Amino acid sequence: MRIALLASAFAESFVPTKTLRRLRLCYASSFPMAASEESLRLALAEKQVAVDAQAEAVRALKTRPGAAKPEIDAAVESLKALKVEAGAAARQLQAAVSRNGNASAGGGREAFRQAVVNTLERRLFYIPSFKIYRGVAGLYDYGPPGCAVKSNVLTFWRQHFVLEENMLEVDCPCVTPEVVLKASGHVDKFTDLMVKDEKTGTCYRADHLLKDYCKEKLEKDLTLSAEKAAELKHVLAMLDDFSAEELGAKLKDYGITAPDTKNTLSDPYPFNLMFQTSIGPSGLLPGYMRPETAQGIFVNFKDLYYYNGNKLPFAAAQIGQAFRNEISPRQGLLRVREFTLAEIEHFVDPEDKSHPKFIDVANLEFLMFPRKEQMTGESAIPIILGEAVSKGIVNNETLGYFIGRVYLFLTRLGINKERLRFRQHLPNEMAHYAADCWDAEIECSYGWIECVGIADRSAYDLRAHSEKSGVPLVAHEKFSEPREIEKLVIVPSKKELGLSFKGNQKMVVEALEAMNEKEALEMKASLESKGEVEFYVCTLGKAVVITKKMVTISIEKKKEHQRVFTPSVIEPSFGIGRIIYCLFEHSFYTRPSKSEDEQLNVFRFPPLVAPIKCTVFPLIKTAKFDDVAKIIAKSLTAAGISHIIDITGTSIGKRYARTDEIGVPFAVTVDSTDSVTIRERDSKEQIRVSIDEVASVVKEVADGQSTWSDIMGRYPAHTAAQSNEE
Amino acid sequence: MRIALLASAFAESFVPTKTLRRLRLCYASSFPMAASEESLRLALAEKQVAVDAQAEAVRALKTRPGAAKPEIDAAVESLKALKVEAGAAARQLQAAVSRNGNASAGGGREAFRQAVVNTLERRLFYIPSFKIYRGVAGLYDYGPPGCAVKSNVLTFWRQHFVLEENMLEVDCPCVTPEVVLKASGHVDKFTDLMVKDEKTGTCYRADHLLKDYCKEKLEKDLTLSAEKAAELKHVLAMLDDFSAEELGAKLKDYGITAPDTKNTLSDPYPFNLMFQTSIGPSGLLPGYMRPETAQGIFVNFKDLYYYNGNKLPFAAAQIGQAFRNEISPRQGLLRVREFTLAEIEHFVDPEDKSHPKFIDVANLEFLMFPRKEQMTGESAIPIILGEAVSKGIVNNETLGYFIGRVYLFLTRLGINKERLRFRQHLPNEMAHYAADCWDAEIECSYGWIECVGIADRSAYDLRAHSEKSGVPLVAHEKFSEPREIEKLVIVPSKKELGLSFKGNQKMVVEALEAMNEKEALEMKASLESKGEVEFYVCTLGKAVVITKKMVTISIEKKKEHQRVFTPSVIEPSFGIGRIIYCLFEHSFYTRPSKSEDEQLNVFRFPPLVAPIKCTVFPLIKTAKFDDVAKIIAKSLTAAGISHIIDITGTSIGKRYARTDEIGVPFAVTVDSTDSVTIRERDSKEQIRVSIDEVASVVKEVADGQSTWSDIMGRYPAHTAAQSNEE
Repeated sequence: MRIALLASAFAESFVPTKTLRRLRLCYASSFPMAASEESLRLALAEKQVAVDAQAEAVRALKTRPGAAKPEIDAAVESLKALKVEAGAAARQLQAAVSRNGNASAGGGREAFRQAVVNTLERRLFYIPSFKIYRGVAGLYDYGPPGCAVKSNVLTFWRQHFVLEENMLEVDCPCVTPEVVLKASGHVDKFTDLMVKDEKTGTCYRADHLLKDYCKEKLEKDLTLSAEKAAELKHVLAMLDDFSAEELGAKLKDYGITAPDTKNTLSDPYPFNLMFQTSIGPSGLLPGYMRPETAQGIFVNFKDLYYYNGNKLPFAAAQIGQAFRNEISPRQGLLRVREFTLAEIEHFVDPEDKSHPKFIDVANLEFLMFPRKEQMTGESAIPIILGEAVSKGIVNNETLGYFIGRVYLFLTRLGINKERLRFRQHLPNEMAHYAADCWDAEIECSYGWIECVGIADRSAYDLRAHSEKSGVPLVAHEKFSEPREIEKLVIVPSKKELGLSFKGNQKMVVEALEAMNEKEALEMKASLESKGEVEFYVCTLGKAVVITKKMVTISIEKKKEHQRVFTPSVIEPSFGIGRIIYCLFEHSFYTRPSKSEDEQLNVFRFPPLVAPIKCTVFPLIKTAKFDDVAKIIAKSLTAAGISHIIDITGTSIGKRYARTDEIGVPFAVTVDSTDSVTIRERDSKEQIRVSIDEVASVVKEVADGQSTWSDIMGRYPAHTAAQSNEE
Repeated sequence: MRIALLASAFAESFVPTKTLRRLRLCYASSFPMAASEESLRLALAEKQVAVDAQAEAVRALKTRPGAAKPEIDAAVESLKALKVEAGAAARQLQAAVSRNGNASAGGGREAFRQAVVNTLERRLFYIPSFKIYRGVAGLYDYGPPGCAVKSNVLTFWRQHFVLEENMLEVDCPCVTPEVVLKASGHVDKFTDLMVKDEKTGTCYRADHLLKDYCKEKLEKDLTLSAEKAAELKHVLAMLDDFSAEELGAKLKDYGITAPDTKNTLSDPYPFNLMFQTSIGPSGLLPGYMRPETAQGIFVNFKDLYYYNGNKLPFAAAQIGQAFRNEISPRQGLLRVREFTLAEIEHFVDPEDKSHPKFIDVANLEFLMFPRKEQMTGESAIPIILGEAVSKGIVNNETLGYFIGRVYLFLTRLGINKERLRFRQHLPNEMAHYAADCWDAEIECSYGWIECVGIADRSAYDLRAHSEKSGVPLVAHEKFSEPREIEKLVIVPSKKELGLSFKGNQKMVVEALEAMNEKEALEMKASLESKGEVEFYVCTLGKAVVITKKMVTISIEKKKEHQRVFTPSVIEPSFGIGRIIYCLFEHSFYTRPSKSEDEQLNVFRFPPLVAPIKCTVFPLIKTAKFDDVAKIIAKSLTAAGISHIIDITGTSIGKRYARTDEIGVPFAVTVDSTDSVTIRERDSKEQIRVSIDEVASVVKEVADGQSTWSDIMGRYPAHTAAQSNEE
């Protein structure tokens, strides 16, 4: 079963990663943060015991006839002091809990996210879909700036991967017949466990309810014993591994009921996450909306291999919509019911996973989080990619090459490299067939989010489709000269066997032919020494006696002209919406307005992804400036530079702020009829450029041929004194 | 109900267009081709009668005792001559039938289509989806070159429409809740009529069966009487207008049975063409895969209007997948179950449909097919767009502007302008609310295919969603100063009405308030003259007597500060897959190989849409040429030019042929280590260019900054004598 990239529940967690949760399971006692929290819980419990004891002492003193007032006062003072200590311990614990387990309790992260999301929604980067009909959970529209960012990200993806690597891009339908997703394992296993409110029928994800319960207890209940806290953490770490029965038992144990009604809940049962439909009018051909794009590539392997001149390696790629009917979508753009995936399937000879262009990325150094560091509770560390491969941390060059290319892709988009790491899957996270798997994780206010998965999936997918369809999805390696190989040949004598076994002859023949080399050679030896041998035939459920005449067993030398094998596939799979959301967070900042009476929002998008490259502002409302603005707009259109003109009479400062807020990197202000100023968004620096040069200058810097500082050196700066910014 | 662009059955027809079919209905007798066919049928019938009579005469002669041999011989000769004449008439009729009604019988068209489709499938422009599982009708994958063409077409669409016009692009999900498609009318009316084989349950489109029957009869049965032929043609013309009952009756009349089994068929019943699914786990929220992208724009109107600064006009655009669960898909890429639409919704003030940029397209002249020419049986004629608008042939400037822009878009892609026409919808084709509608039709081997619809849909869609959602989707025009308007005010006295009508008071109040101006003023006059008046209340089903005291009716003057109105929408809607298929046909040609022993296939794609812009061929297999090829490839990648290297040892001629066949416009042949040749695909001309200039030269001509002849002038030609083409 293919567990596809974005299906894992992990990005949902508020704790840093699924890895950490898993770690708590395996290495809870050696896990430093958890340990510190544990000691704080113990300390708090001790203080509480001391407070209770002193309170009891005070009560005893007060009721004791003839107790001296100074004595009582001293005891009360002592109680107060103990309470202060206990309070401090409680605050320390609360802080530790927030730090460790839960980003949201941090406050700062929540407030930051709210500021980003408010800006994104107000400026129509995205919109809850079908809003006038009260929307549908987990479905979002990209509005104009969001749609432009998405289109820019996809264009760059195509340039960076498809074009650069000569990949074979395909475009397959979303509607997929059941047989394909049966072969891939999705029909049987692409499920989440669900419970229903037994009275209202409302559905919940079983693991969500259990997780919410544990987290709430851990965060809010400071009287929790260290033992109980450890148990709840263990449950959180185990969440993904629980069976339906185990989950159900936990829900019962903790007395968890439906959140809204407090009604009892059904037992957990699997709910398939694919949107089901029916193809054609008969109702007899079930279909699904694809949960990933990869299957469209696998089923076309044969044609694509032929298209590539029957040569390996080659990569195919696909960008397209995928669908998951989430039980209860959460976390805005990060977990949605319909999303854009960009997937690459790079097919290689399993015996040669070298990559000729690995050298181009071998010197890159960035944060990696190998298995070892995760297991020992350390953090992600900067590693030089070439060393990661040569030391065997990364399984092979091709996998390493893609890790490097993904790093370049994400950072060029504007992802902060300090908040990007490549995390290796732990053995228990990987499917049994996978050779190695790394996730590009990006840190945002929800924690570390899996945005790209880069997996060496071995030959699993092609084999699954070969078996189900009966069409061999294999590659051939022609030998330059034929190779001699030894081959076991078993020739049952049907005539002899027929005489002895009559109607059972066929079963005996099949059993003989099915022997492996060892069995066959043993039989050969026995027949030669003893002339006959007992042979157990499964299909008959009994042993028969085989004589020398009945079978000839030999090792023959044969010449082979080619090797036939199922290629391995290395799969980088990109959740485009997740990357874009993280990019929004990494690009967002605020700065005071000139008058310092308000904070202004800015997205520091690189020109590559900025939704609009340039705005044009006539400084004041006058026909001659408007005419210049139109001329400039026309030349920008001709140069293929997306832009908007803002001729509202608003102050130029407000107009700058308005386009800074959607991340427009350059603003052209028309303040004369022969030259204009160009302002860079983040530095607010301005240069003066003649009207006929504007389009080419903006194009040069927007296309990344030059940097802003290159340009700054070539044109006169428009100084602060002259500045038209308010 | 919104009848969406590509839903019309019309593109399916083998006769030139639905219009023509409709014309036969309205104007059958004046339709020249049909008339000629009719006279040929009559002539053939006459000849047949003469043959039969003569044959009878011969038989009579032969059996008459004593008939003279010369007399018999003469009669036989005469019979032979009559048979020859009848044969000639039959052939003439056959030819006319082929010419008129049916492209497929033309032979040439079929053969041409087969050649194109074979090349497209062999070179993986497209592939039947899920082929290893025997495919699913109506679902196709784009393979690498097809996918690249599609991506280029969409990039150009975005550049030509979205960027050029500053449109607001949005990106909405395919999964759509029922309420949205209920409002748009799709849930109730987006249907085709279906019949089932009563024994096997196999489904057929009822109109297809009737059409196939009529066409077969008309084509193959030359003994058909002219009367019967006219009837069948009438049926073909009526196909789209038949109700379920009428279709059912026709199927019965003609004794039409299931094509495969000859079993009887059920009565026709409507089958909804949307793929249905269920959103979320409860099964209580029905949803559909959207049948068009437009609804996603309409439901966002309010936000988009705000985003545009509450100003009209503005356009929103969307590119995305749409889905139609066709009963029985036919015609390859032209009628599929999942396809890419690119739609524009341009919102305008219904009182001002002028367009400031209309002047940019007013001088364009191209084939238009206005209503009048269709009704009088004429052909499409070249018209200057400016005149079409000024003469009122095209309803308004904005509609005209988009017609012009669509013309430019299609011809720049490589659509042959001689085989492109803009056909106006006839009154009976348009929805009642539509102001005007033109289809861009492209002629291909299937006939004239509707590829873009450009409709002025008035305020219909926004009104439908306003009503259903309760959210007003309106625009405001602020008056520079308040305007005085007269307003009818009806104030029923509830007290008086209550006294007289008790429980019926509410119904009377509502009826009074619902009066229009004329009714109210008449009542006012009657009340003033007679003091009372009889008034019919529908909801009570009777008349009541209204007295002066019961209601005050007046005309009041009010000041209004703004006009509130529902914008009109002008919608250009592009079927991207259909455009691409027609482009394939228009771009395809064959030419003899150099040795003239075979025909080679070529796609003459303009560089804009060519899947790959350039190939690089080392002339012979040698390390130094391979190195040069790699250097050139690297510089092409840096310049963003898609390319492939072909280092197979095959002859250069074969390698040229191989990339001509996928429409690569330029080929670089490495035949030395300092300069190389660049060959243009269609002219086969070659120039010699130094290695460090190759990328910039190819980029210049691939980006359309220069033409091939500009380039030819600047570099030495590589003459035929030197030519390395074989």
